[in-house]
Amino acid sequence: MIVGTEWLIEAKGCNRDALRDEDKIKSILSRVIDDLGLRVVGEVWHKFGGEGGVTGLIALTESHLACHTYPEHGVATFNLYCCRSRPEWDWEHYLTDLLGASNVLVTRVQRGESEFQITNLRSEISDLKFEIAGGER
Amino acid sequence: MIVGTEWLIEAKGCNRDALRDEDKIKSILSRVIDDLGLRVVGEVWHKFGGEGGVTGLIALTESHLACHTYPEHGVATFNLYCCRSRPEWDWEHYLTDLLGASNVLVTRVQRGESEFQITNLRSEISDLKFEIAGGER
Repeated sequence: MIVGTEWLIEAKGCNRDALRDEDKIKSILSRVIDDLGLRVVGEVWHKFGGEGGVTGLIALTESHLACHTYPEHGVATFNLYCCRSRPEWDWEHYLTDLLGASNVLVTRVQRGESEFQITNLRSEISDLKFEIAGGER
Repeated sequence: MIVGTEWLIEAKGCNRDALRDEDKIKSILSRVIDDLGLRVVGEVWHKFGGEGGVTGLIALTESHLACHTYPEHGVATFNLYCCRSRPEWDWEHYLTDLLGASNVLVTRVQRGESEFQITNLRSEISDLKFEIAGGER
């Protein structure tokens, strides 16, 4: 039973100041929400002190959207979990444009299954699927 | 650059009433937090109406912990994302005990890498690692 789709996004080589800019990170997540027609039911934001990064968690009627930034490494990661079908958002385009990312990896995972299905959206290994040995009790 | 480890947990065959019980779901996440010595910086909870499930998102200084339940399918999913090393939590044992799960799949993902590394914790295919073709720009 697939209960949702989760996208895991790794953005590397980002502008470090951008990763410390809570307003910028909020604006990116807002754009995802607007573009995909998601509905917010609550959110938590945390800016780590000094040169630290930003954490944002947004609860959606469709599940959740999360971001953590690591300015010290030039890395941001995102999770978008949707329990209903949504189009692909162009993470690579927007994170390159808005965070200066030099490399964006987007991986899609189906949730709720006892076999683990992942798809890398820029990979030639598309729709890789393997059954987990021992996954059933 | 690995910036964190994320565990994706799929629990199937759960007791449907338990999946609608916000206090029970909160107590499970609290136990994870206590057992692993995690520190909460904020949280959002949402109980869907009627026979609906529960969403919980907890922001941690170590990243986040999330849960979504689907009583109609007997499924709960969890995400635990930690940006510092933490021991394994025995999801299978506790979710079998506390939610009556008949099947628990735990998958560990390294975040922040341009190659995607996953490990299924009950699999004979351990430490599966593959490089994503086309992952570098």
